[in-house]
Amino acid sequence: MANPSEHIVKSYDEELKHLNSLIGRMGGLVETQLDGAIQAVLRRAPESAEVIVKGDAQVDALETEVGALVVRLLALRQPMAVDLRHIVSALKIAADLERFGDHAKSIAKRAIAISQVPRIPAPGLDRMARMVQAMIKDVLDAYLEGDTNKAVKVWRRDAEVDQLYNSLFRELLTYMMEDPRNITGCAHLLFIAKNVERMGDHATNIAETVHYQVKGTKLPDDRPKGDDPSFTIAEGQG
Amino acid sequence: MANPSEHIVKSYDEELKHLNSLIGRMGGLVETQLDGAIQAVLRRAPESAEVIVKGDAQVDALETEVGALVVRLLALRQPMAVDLRHIVSALKIAADLERFGDHAKSIAKRAIAISQVPRIPAPGLDRMARMVQAMIKDVLDAYLEGDTNKAVKVWRRDAEVDQLYNSLFRELLTYMMEDPRNITGCAHLLFIAKNVERMGDHATNIAETVHYQVKGTKLPDDRPKGDDPSFTIAEGQG
Repeated sequence: MANPSEHIVKSYDEELKHLNSLIGRMGGLVETQLDGAIQAVLRRAPESAEVIVKGDAQVDALETEVGALVVRLLALRQPMAVDLRHIVSALKIAADLERFGDHAKSIAKRAIAISQVPRIPAPGLDRMARMVQAMIKDVLDAYLEGDTNKAVKVWRRDAEVDQLYNSLFRELLTYMMEDPRNITGCAHLLFIAKNVERMGDHATNIAETVHYQVKGTKLPDDRPKGDDPSFTIAEGQG
Repeated sequence: MANPSEHIVKSYDEELKHLNSLIGRMGGLVETQLDGAIQAVLRRAPESAEVIVKGDAQVDALETEVGALVVRLLALRQPMAVDLRHIVSALKIAADLERFGDHAKSIAKRAIAISQVPRIPAPGLDRMARMVQAMIKDVLDAYLEGDTNKAVKVWRRDAEVDQLYNSLFRELLTYMMEDPRNITGCAHLLFIAKNVERMGDHATNIAETVHYQVKGTKLPDDRPKGDDPSFTIAEGQG
Protein backbone atom coordinates (compact mmCIF):
# COMPACT_ATOMS: atom_id res chain seq x y z
CA MET A 1 0.00 0.00 0.00
CA ALA A 2 2.70 2.45 -0.98
CA ASN A 3 0.33 4.57 -2.94
CA PRO A 4 -3.25 4.92 -1.69
CA SER A 5 -4.53 6.45 -4.94
CA GLU A 6 -3.24 3.41 -6.82
CA HIS A 7 -5.17 1.27 -4.39
CA ILE A 8 -8.35 3.17 -5.22
CA VAL A 9 -7.75 2.85 -8.95
CA LYS A 10 -7.18 -0.86 -8.66
CA SER A 11 -10.25 -1.39 -6.56
CA TYR A 12 -12.36 0.65 -9.00
CA ASP A 13 -11.10 -1.56 -11.79
CA GLU A 14 -12.05 -4.58 -9.74
CA GLU A 15 -15.52 -3.21 -9.28
CA LEU A 16 -15.89 -2.83 -13.04
CA LYS A 17 -14.72 -6.44 -13.45
CA HIS A 18 -17.24 -7.50 -10.85
CA LEU A 19 -19.92 -5.65 -12.83
CA ASN A 20 -18.95 -7.61 -15.94
CA SER A 21 -18.95 -10.90 -14.11
CA LEU A 22 -22.46 -10.21 -12.78
CA ILE A 23 -23.65 -9.50 -16.33
CA GLY A 24 -21.91 -12.68 -17.53
CA ARG A 25 -23.62 -14.74 -14.85
CA MET A 26 -27.02 -13.24 -15.69
CA GLY A 27 -26.44 -14.08 -19.35
CA GLY A 28 -25.54 -17.70 -18.62
CA LEU A 29 -28.53 -18.05 -16.37
CA VAL A 30 -31.15 -16.68 -18.77
CA GLU A 31 -29.74 -18.83 -21.57
CA THR A 32 -30.29 -21.92 -19.37
CA GLN A 33 -33.73 -20.65 -18.36
CA LEU A 34 -34.79 -20.31 -22.00
CA ASP A 35 -33.56 -23.79 -22.85
CA GLY A 36 -35.26 -25.33 -19.80
CA ALA A 37 -38.55 -23.55 -20.48
CA ILE A 38 -38.71 -24.66 -24.11
CA GLN A 39 -37.80 -28.24 -23.21
CA ALA A 40 -40.58 -28.21 -20.62
CA VAL A 41 -43.04 -27.15 -23.35
CA LEU A 42 -41.85 -29.67 -25.92
CA ARG A 43 -41.55 -32.60 -23.50
CA ARG A 44 -44.73 -31.68 -21.60
CA ALA A 45 -42.84 -31.65 -18.34
CA PRO A 46 -44.71 -29.51 -15.79
CA GLU A 47 -42.32 -30.44 -12.93
CA SER A 48 -39.25 -29.12 -14.69
CA ALA A 49 -41.28 -26.06 -15.70
CA GLU A 50 -41.80 -25.35 -11.98
CA VAL A 51 -38.04 -25.32 -11.51
CA ILE A 52 -37.68 -22.70 -14.26
CA VAL A 53 -40.45 -20.53 -12.76
CA LYS A 54 -38.65 -20.56 -9.39
CA GLY A 55 -35.27 -19.98 -11.04
CA ASP A 56 -36.32 -16.54 -12.25
CA ALA A 57 -35.81 -15.14 -8.75
CA GLN A 58 -32.07 -15.67 -9.22
CA VAL A 59 -32.10 -13.56 -12.36
CA ASP A 60 -33.98 -10.82 -10.55
CA ALA A 61 -31.55 -10.97 -7.63
CA LEU A 62 -28.61 -10.53 -9.99
CA GLU A 63 -30.28 -7.54 -11.63
CA THR A 64 -30.80 -5.97 -8.20
CA GLU A 65 -27.12 -6.59 -7.45
CA VAL A 66 -26.11 -4.89 -10.71
CA GLY A 67 -28.38 -1.94 -9.89
CA ALA A 68 -26.90 -1.54 -6.41
CA LEU A 69 -23.35 -1.74 -7.73
CA VAL A 70 -24.11 0.83 -10.44
CA VAL A 71 -25.60 3.28 -7.94
CA ARG A 72 -22.57 2.81 -5.71
CA LEU A 73 -20.16 3.35 -8.60
CA LEU A 74 -22.04 6.46 -9.73
CA ALA A 75 -22.23 7.94 -6.27
CA LEU A 76 -18.75 7.15 -4.99
CA ARG A 77 -16.64 7.16 -8.14
CA GLN A 78 -18.36 9.85 -10.17
CA PRO A 79 -17.17 8.32 -13.42
CA MET A 80 -16.87 10.35 -16.61
CA ALA A 81 -17.10 9.65 -20.36
CA VAL A 82 -16.05 6.08 -21.23
CA ASP A 83 -16.53 4.70 -17.73
CA LEU A 84 -19.91 6.36 -17.38
CA ARG A 85 -20.93 4.81 -20.71
CA HIS A 86 -19.73 1.41 -19.53
CA ILE A 87 -21.67 1.63 -16.28
CA VAL A 88 -24.88 2.93 -17.83
CA SER A 89 -24.61 0.21 -20.51
CA ALA A 90 -24.29 -2.49 -17.87
CA LEU A 91 -27.48 -1.22 -16.26
CA LYS A 92 -29.34 -1.31 -19.58
CA ILE A 93 -28.04 -4.78 -20.42
CA ALA A 94 -29.06 -6.07 -16.99
CA ALA A 95 -32.57 -4.70 -17.59
CA ASP A 96 -32.77 -6.49 -20.95
CA LEU A 97 -31.52 -9.73 -19.40
CA GLU A 98 -34.05 -9.44 -16.61
CA ARG A 99 -36.86 -9.09 -19.13
CA PHE A 100 -35.41 -11.94 -21.17
CA GLY A 101 -35.64 -14.01 -17.99
CA ASP A 102 -39.23 -12.91 -17.42
CA HIS A 103 -40.15 -14.29 -20.82
CA ALA A 104 -38.54 -17.64 -19.92
CA LYS A 105 -40.64 -17.66 -16.76
CA SER A 106 -43.82 -16.92 -18.75
CA ILE A 107 -43.01 -19.76 -21.14
CA ALA A 108 -42.47 -22.13 -18.23
CA LYS A 109 -45.84 -21.14 -16.71
CA ARG A 110 -47.52 -21.87 -20.00
CA ALA A 111 -45.66 -25.20 -20.21
CA ILE A 112 -47.58 -26.18 -17.09
CA ALA A 113 -50.94 -25.18 -18.61
CA ILE A 114 -50.19 -26.73 -21.97
CA SER A 115 -49.32 -30.13 -20.52
CA GLN A 116 -53.06 -30.58 -19.83
CA VAL A 117 -54.31 -30.14 -23.41
CA PRO A 118 -53.80 -32.17 -26.61
CA ARG A 119 -50.26 -32.05 -27.97
CA ILE A 120 -49.63 -29.77 -30.96
CA PRO A 121 -46.59 -30.29 -33.18
CA ALA A 122 -44.51 -27.09 -33.23
CA PRO A 123 -41.15 -27.84 -34.81
CA GLY A 124 -40.66 -24.17 -35.65
CA LEU A 125 -40.72 -23.27 -31.97
CA ASP A 126 -37.67 -25.37 -31.12
CA ARG A 127 -35.74 -23.90 -34.05
CA MET A 128 -36.66 -20.36 -33.11
CA ALA A 129 -35.67 -20.91 -29.48
CA ARG A 130 -32.28 -22.34 -30.48
CA MET A 131 -31.64 -19.32 -32.65
CA VAL A 132 -32.46 -16.89 -29.83
CA GLN A 133 -30.35 -18.92 -27.41
CA ALA A 134 -27.36 -18.59 -29.73
CA MET A 135 -28.05 -14.86 -30.06
CA ILE A 136 -28.02 -14.23 -26.32
CA LYS A 137 -24.84 -16.28 -25.91
CA ASP A 138 -23.06 -14.47 -28.74
CA VAL A 139 -24.15 -10.99 -27.69
CA LEU A 140 -22.86 -11.56 -24.16
CA ASP A 141 -19.54 -12.70 -25.63
CA ALA A 142 -19.57 -9.52 -27.72
CA TYR A 143 -20.14 -7.49 -24.55
CA LEU A 144 -17.41 -9.17 -22.53
CA GLU A 145 -14.93 -8.99 -25.44
CA GLY A 146 -15.98 -5.49 -26.54
CA ASP A 147 -16.42 -6.98 -30.04
CA THR A 148 -18.76 -4.78 -32.10
CA ASN A 149 -18.55 -7.00 -35.20
CA LYS A 150 -19.97 -9.86 -33.21
CA ALA A 151 -22.65 -7.55 -31.82
CA VAL A 152 -23.65 -6.41 -35.31
CA LYS A 153 -23.94 -10.05 -36.45
CA VAL A 154 -26.37 -10.76 -33.63
CA TRP A 155 -28.29 -7.62 -34.49
CA ARG A 156 -28.72 -8.83 -38.09
CA ARG A 157 -30.01 -12.24 -37.04
CA ASP A 158 -33.17 -10.81 -35.49
CA ALA A 159 -34.85 -10.66 -38.92
CA GLU A 160 -34.61 -14.46 -39.19
CA VAL A 161 -36.26 -14.89 -35.81
CA ASP A 162 -39.08 -12.66 -36.97
CA GLN A 163 -39.52 -14.76 -40.11
CA LEU A 164 -39.71 -17.97 -38.09
CA TYR A 165 -42.23 -16.35 -35.78
CA ASN A 166 -44.29 -15.27 -38.75
CA SER A 167 -44.48 -18.84 -40.12
CA LEU A 168 -45.26 -20.28 -36.73
CA PHE A 169 -48.06 -17.75 -36.13
CA ARG A 170 -49.77 -18.72 -39.41
CA GLU A 171 -49.26 -22.41 -38.76
CA LEU A 172 -50.84 -22.24 -35.32
CA LEU A 173 -53.91 -20.40 -36.62
CA THR A 174 -54.30 -23.15 -39.21
CA TYR A 175 -54.24 -25.85 -36.52
CA MET A 176 -56.91 -23.94 -34.62
CA MET A 177 -59.13 -23.80 -37.69
CA GLU A 178 -58.70 -27.50 -38.38
CA ASP A 179 -59.82 -28.69 -34.98
CA PRO A 180 -61.35 -26.68 -32.14
CA ARG A 181 -59.73 -29.05 -29.64
CA ASN A 182 -56.41 -27.46 -30.61
CA ILE A 183 -57.55 -23.95 -29.71
CA THR A 184 -56.44 -23.68 -26.09
CA GLY A 185 -53.07 -25.32 -26.73
CA CYS A 186 -52.45 -23.16 -29.79
CA ALA A 187 -53.43 -19.98 -27.92
CA HIS A 188 -50.74 -20.77 -25.37
CA LEU A 189 -48.25 -21.60 -28.13
CA LEU A 190 -49.01 -18.26 -29.80
CA PHE A 191 -47.98 -16.50 -26.60
CA ILE A 192 -44.94 -18.74 -26.16
CA ALA A 193 -43.79 -17.98 -29.71
CA LYS A 194 -44.33 -14.29 -29.01
CA ASN A 195 -42.22 -14.59 -25.86
CA VAL A 196 -39.34 -16.10 -27.85
CA GLU A 197 -39.67 -13.41 -30.49
CA ARG A 198 -39.47 -10.73 -27.78
CA MET A 199 -36.40 -12.43 -26.33
CA GLY A 200 -34.78 -11.99 -29.74
CA ASP A 201 -35.60 -8.29 -29.48
CA HIS A 202 -33.84 -8.09 -26.13
CA ALA A 203 -30.74 -9.77 -27.56
CA THR A 204 -30.90 -7.19 -30.34
CA ASN A 205 -31.23 -4.35 -27.83
CA ILE A 206 -28.12 -5.64 -26.09
CA ALA A 207 -26.26 -5.71 -29.41
CA GLU A 208 -27.17 -2.04 -29.85
CA THR A 209 -26.01 -1.22 -26.32
CA VAL A 210 -22.67 -3.00 -26.88
CA HIS A 211 -22.14 -1.08 -30.10
CA TYR A 212 -22.91 2.21 -28.38
CA GLN A 213 -20.72 1.39 -25.41
CA VAL A 214 -17.68 0.50 -27.51
CA LYS A 215 -18.01 2.96 -30.40
CA GLY A 216 -20.01 5.74 -28.78
CA THR A 217 -22.31 5.80 -31.83
CA LYS A 218 -25.72 4.29 -32.43
CA LEU A 219 -26.61 1.57 -34.90
CA PRO A 220 -29.09 2.78 -37.55
CA ASP A 221 -32.70 3.14 -36.43
CA ASP A 222 -33.99 0.84 -39.13
CA ARG A 223 -33.34 -2.38 -37.33
CA PRO A 224 -33.36 -5.23 -39.86
CA LYS A 225 -36.84 -6.66 -39.57
CA GLY A 226 -38.68 -9.51 -41.20
CA ASP A 227 -42.26 -8.81 -42.20
CA ASP A 228 -43.88 -7.48 -39.09
CA PRO A 229 -44.92 -10.88 -37.89
CA SER A 230 -47.67 -10.33 -35.40
CA PHE A 231 -49.95 -8.44 -37.61
CA THR A 232 -50.53 -10.81 -40.48
CA ILE A 233 -53.83 -12.32 -41.41
CA ALA A 234 -53.92 -16.09 -41.78
CA GLU A 235 -55.02 -17.43 -45.13
CA GLY A 236 -58.44 -18.95 -45.43
CA GLN A 237 -60.08 -16.17 -43.43
CA GLY A 238 -62.21 -13.35 -44.78
CA MET B 1 -26.32 37.18 -9.27
CA ALA B 2 -25.15 38.18 -5.81
CA ASN B 3 -24.43 34.63 -4.78
CA PRO B 4 -23.23 32.19 -7.44
CA SER B 5 -23.86 29.11 -5.28
CA GLU B 6 -27.48 30.18 -4.85
CA HIS B 7 -27.70 30.42 -8.60
CA ILE B 8 -26.49 26.85 -8.91
CA VAL B 9 -28.97 25.62 -6.33
CA LYS B 10 -31.84 27.34 -8.06
CA SER B 11 -30.89 26.02 -11.44
CA TYR B 12 -30.55 22.49 -10.06
CA ASP B 13 -34.03 22.82 -8.63
CA GLU B 14 -35.23 23.98 -12.03
CA GLU B 15 -33.65 20.95 -13.63
CA LEU B 16 -35.52 18.66 -11.23
CA LYS B 17 -38.74 20.50 -12.10
CA HIS B 18 -37.96 20.04 -15.77
CA LEU B 19 -37.45 16.31 -15.10
CA ASN B 20 -40.90 16.14 -13.51
CA SER B 21 -42.50 18.05 -16.35
CA LEU B 22 -40.98 15.63 -18.87
CA ILE B 23 -42.40 12.68 -16.91
CA GLY B 24 -45.76 14.45 -16.72
CA ARG B 25 -45.79 14.97 -20.47
CA MET B 26 -44.87 11.35 -21.12
CA GLY B 27 -47.70 10.26 -18.84
CA GLY B 28 -50.28 12.43 -20.61
CA LEU B 29 -49.07 11.21 -23.97
CA VAL B 30 -49.22 7.47 -23.23
CA GLU B 31 -52.67 7.88 -21.69
CA THR B 32 -53.87 9.43 -24.97
CA GLN B 33 -52.06 6.74 -26.97
CA LEU B 34 -53.83 3.97 -25.06
CA ASP B 35 -57.22 5.60 -25.54
CA GLY B 36 -56.60 6.17 -29.26
CA ALA B 37 -55.38 2.62 -29.82
CA ILE B 38 -58.37 1.01 -28.12
CA GLN B 39 -60.80 3.28 -29.97
CA ALA B 40 -59.13 2.28 -33.24
CA VAL B 41 -59.71 -1.38 -32.37
CA LEU B 42 -63.31 -0.95 -31.28
CA ARG B 43 -64.30 1.37 -34.13
CA ARG B 44 -62.28 -0.57 -36.73
CA ALA B 45 -60.48 2.61 -37.74
CA PRO B 46 -57.15 1.70 -39.40
CA GLU B 47 -56.39 5.35 -40.33
CA SER B 48 -56.51 6.58 -36.76
CA ALA B 49 -54.48 3.52 -35.74
CA GLU B 50 -51.73 4.72 -38.09
CA VAL B 51 -51.63 8.02 -36.21
CA ILE B 52 -51.12 6.16 -32.93
CA VAL B 53 -48.34 4.02 -34.41
CA LYS B 54 -46.51 7.15 -35.55
CA GLY B 55 -47.20 8.93 -32.26
CA ASP B 56 -45.03 6.44 -30.36
CA ALA B 57 -41.89 8.18 -31.62
CA GLN B 58 -42.80 11.16 -29.43
CA VAL B 59 -42.92 8.95 -26.35
CA ASP B 60 -39.52 7.50 -27.25
CA ALA B 61 -38.10 10.97 -27.81
CA LEU B 62 -39.27 12.08 -24.37
CA GLU B 63 -37.69 9.01 -22.77
CA THR B 64 -34.40 9.82 -24.50
CA GLU B 65 -34.68 13.37 -23.18
CA VAL B 66 -35.26 12.09 -19.64
CA GLY B 67 -32.25 9.76 -19.99
CA ALA B 68 -30.00 12.57 -21.20
CA LEU B 69 -31.13 14.88 -18.41
CA VAL B 70 -30.56 12.16 -15.80
CA VAL B 71 -27.03 11.44 -17.05
CA ARG B 72 -26.30 15.18 -16.98
CA LEU B 73 -27.67 15.54 -13.45
CA LEU B 74 -25.71 12.52 -12.24
CA ALA B 75 -22.48 13.65 -13.85
CA LEU B 76 -22.57 17.36 -13.05
CA ARG B 77 -24.50 17.51 -9.81
CA GLN B 78 -23.39 14.29 -8.16
CA PRO B 79 -26.58 14.11 -6.13
CA MET B 80 -26.81 12.16 -2.88
CA ALA B 81 -29.53 10.34 -0.94
CA VAL B 82 -33.00 11.82 -1.57
CA ASP B 83 -32.06 13.57 -4.79
CA LEU B 84 -30.33 10.48 -6.14
CA ARG B 85 -33.45 8.46 -5.34
CA HIS B 86 -35.60 11.05 -7.11
CA ILE B 87 -33.43 11.01 -10.22
CA VAL B 88 -33.08 7.23 -10.42
CA SER B 89 -36.86 6.93 -9.89
CA ALA B 90 -37.55 9.31 -12.76
CA LEU B 91 -35.41 7.12 -15.00
CA LYS B 92 -37.30 3.99 -13.97
CA ILE B 93 -40.68 5.67 -14.42
CA ALA B 94 -39.69 6.92 -17.86
CA ALA B 95 -38.71 3.34 -18.81
CA ASP B 96 -42.11 2.05 -17.65
CA LEU B 97 -43.92 4.80 -19.56
CA GLU B 98 -41.92 4.02 -22.68
CA ARG B 99 -42.94 0.38 -22.49
CA PHE B 100 -46.51 1.41 -21.76
CA GLY B 101 -46.33 3.41 -24.99
CA ASP B 102 -44.91 0.42 -26.87
CA HIS B 103 -47.94 -1.60 -25.89
CA ALA B 104 -50.24 1.15 -27.22
CA LYS B 105 -48.32 1.01 -30.48
CA SER B 106 -48.68 -2.79 -30.67
CA ILE B 107 -52.42 -2.48 -30.06
CA ALA B 108 -52.68 0.12 -32.83
CA LYS B 109 -50.82 -2.18 -35.25
CA ARG B 110 -53.23 -4.96 -34.46
CA ALA B 111 -56.16 -2.55 -34.91
CA ILE B 112 -55.05 -2.29 -38.53
CA ALA B 113 -54.93 -6.07 -38.99
CA ILE B 114 -58.17 -6.67 -37.16
CA SER B 115 -60.14 -4.23 -39.30
CA GLN B 116 -59.91 -6.80 -42.11
CA VAL B 117 -61.53 -9.73 -40.31
CA PRO B 118 -65.07 -10.29 -38.95
CA ARG B 119 -65.98 -8.12 -35.96
CA ILE B 120 -65.88 -9.76 -32.54
CA PRO B 121 -67.74 -8.21 -29.61
CA ALA B 122 -65.31 -7.53 -26.77
CA PRO B 123 -67.02 -5.33 -24.20
CA GLY B 124 -64.54 -6.44 -21.52
CA LEU B 125 -61.68 -4.93 -23.50
CA ASP B 126 -63.05 -1.40 -23.35
CA ARG B 127 -63.67 -1.71 -19.60
CA MET B 128 -60.19 -3.05 -18.97
CA ALA B 129 -58.60 -0.28 -21.01
CA ARG B 130 -60.53 2.43 -19.14
CA MET B 131 -59.37 0.97 -15.86
CA VAL B 132 -55.72 0.98 -16.94
CA GLN B 133 -56.09 4.50 -18.31
CA ALA B 134 -57.33 5.70 -14.91
CA MET B 135 -54.44 3.87 -13.23
CA ILE B 136 -51.77 5.56 -15.33
CA LYS B 137 -53.38 8.96 -14.79
CA ASP B 138 -53.64 8.48 -11.03
CA VAL B 139 -50.15 7.08 -10.59
CA LEU B 140 -48.64 10.05 -12.42
CA ASP B 141 -50.61 12.37 -10.13
CA ALA B 142 -49.24 10.37 -7.20
CA TYR B 143 -45.72 10.87 -8.57
CA LEU B 144 -46.07 14.60 -9.13
CA GLU B 145 -47.74 15.12 -5.74
CA GLY B 146 -45.47 12.67 -3.89
CA ASP B 147 -48.69 11.04 -2.62
CA THR B 148 -47.97 7.46 -1.53
CA ASN B 149 -51.58 6.73 -0.51
CA LYS B 150 -52.68 7.42 -4.05
CA ALA B 151 -49.84 5.24 -5.34
CA VAL B 152 -50.88 2.34 -3.09
CA LYS B 153 -54.47 2.62 -4.33
CA VAL B 154 -53.28 2.25 -7.92
CA TRP B 155 -51.11 -0.68 -6.89
CA ARG B 156 -54.15 -2.45 -5.40
CA ARG B 157 -56.25 -1.99 -8.55
CA ASP B 158 -54.01 -4.21 -10.64
CA ALA B 159 -55.75 -7.33 -9.32
CA GLU B 160 -59.03 -6.14 -10.90
CA VAL B 161 -57.34 -5.68 -14.25
CA ASP B 162 -56.03 -9.22 -14.02
CA GLN B 163 -59.52 -10.53 -13.28
CA LEU B 164 -60.97 -8.71 -16.30
CA TYR B 165 -58.16 -10.11 -18.43
CA ASN B 166 -58.90 -13.59 -17.16
CA SER B 167 -62.58 -13.37 -18.16
CA LEU B 168 -61.74 -11.89 -21.53
CA PHE B 169 -59.19 -14.62 -22.27
CA ARG B 170 -61.77 -17.36 -21.61
CA GLU B 171 -64.44 -15.52 -23.58
CA LEU B 172 -62.22 -15.16 -26.63
CA LEU B 173 -61.31 -18.86 -26.64
CA THR B 174 -65.03 -19.63 -26.56
CA TYR B 175 -65.67 -17.46 -29.63
CA MET B 176 -62.87 -19.25 -31.43
CA MET B 177 -64.39 -22.64 -30.66
CA GLU B 178 -67.85 -21.53 -31.80
CA ASP B 179 -66.80 -20.39 -35.26
CA PRO B 180 -63.42 -20.82 -36.99
CA ARG B 181 -63.99 -17.53 -38.84
CA ASN B 182 -63.46 -15.80 -35.50
CA ILE B 183 -60.02 -17.32 -34.98
CA THR B 184 -57.77 -14.70 -36.55
CA GLY B 185 -59.64 -11.80 -35.00
CA CYS B 186 -59.68 -13.45 -31.60
CA ALA B 187 -55.97 -14.28 -31.79
CA HIS B 188 -55.27 -10.57 -32.28
CA LEU B 189 -57.68 -9.66 -29.48
CA LEU B 190 -55.89 -12.11 -27.16
CA PHE B 191 -52.67 -10.20 -27.76
CA ILE B 192 -54.40 -6.84 -27.41
CA ALA B 193 -55.89 -7.88 -24.07
CA LYS B 194 -52.46 -9.08 -23.00
CA ASN B 195 -50.99 -5.70 -23.97
CA VAL B 196 -53.53 -3.89 -21.79
CA GLU B 197 -52.85 -6.28 -18.90
CA ARG B 198 -49.12 -5.56 -19.23
CA MET B 199 -49.84 -1.83 -19.23
CA GLY B 200 -51.55 -2.31 -15.89
CA ASP B 201 -48.33 -3.96 -14.67
CA HIS B 202 -46.33 -0.92 -15.73
CA ALA B 203 -48.71 1.41 -13.85
CA THR B 204 -48.22 -0.87 -10.84
CA ASN B 205 -44.43 -0.73 -11.26
CA ILE B 206 -44.64 3.05 -11.23
CA ALA B 207 -46.72 2.94 -8.05
CA GLU B 208 -43.95 0.89 -6.45
CA THR B 209 -41.32 3.34 -7.64
CA VAL B 210 -43.28 6.32 -6.25
CA HIS B 211 -43.60 4.57 -2.92
CA TYR B 212 -39.90 3.82 -2.83
CA GLN B 213 -38.96 7.33 -3.88
CA VAL B 214 -41.08 9.03 -1.22
CA LYS B 215 -40.73 6.60 1.69
CA GLY B 216 -37.43 4.93 0.87
CA THR B 217 -39.01 1.53 1.55
CA LYS B 218 -40.39 -1.09 -0.77
CA LEU B 219 -43.98 -2.25 -1.05
CA PRO B 220 -44.38 -5.95 -0.18
CA ASP B 221 -43.25 -8.44 -2.79
CA ASP B 222 -46.60 -10.15 -2.94
CA ARG B 223 -48.21 -7.76 -5.34
CA PRO B 224 -52.00 -8.20 -5.14
CA LYS B 225 -52.79 -10.48 -8.04
CA GLY B 226 -55.95 -11.95 -9.48
CA ASP B 227 -55.74 -15.59 -10.54
CA ASP B 228 -52.80 -15.79 -12.84
CA PRO B 229 -54.79 -15.02 -15.90
CA SER B 230 -52.73 -16.20 -18.83
CA PHE B 231 -52.39 -19.72 -17.78
CA THR B 232 -55.93 -20.91 -17.40
CA ILE B 233 -57.52 -23.63 -19.46
CA ALA B 234 -60.78 -22.77 -21.15
CA GLU B 235 -63.77 -24.90 -20.31
CA GLY B 236 -64.97 -27.38 -22.89
CA GLN B 237 -61.44 -28.52 -23.71
CA GLY B 238 -59.78 -31.66 -22.51
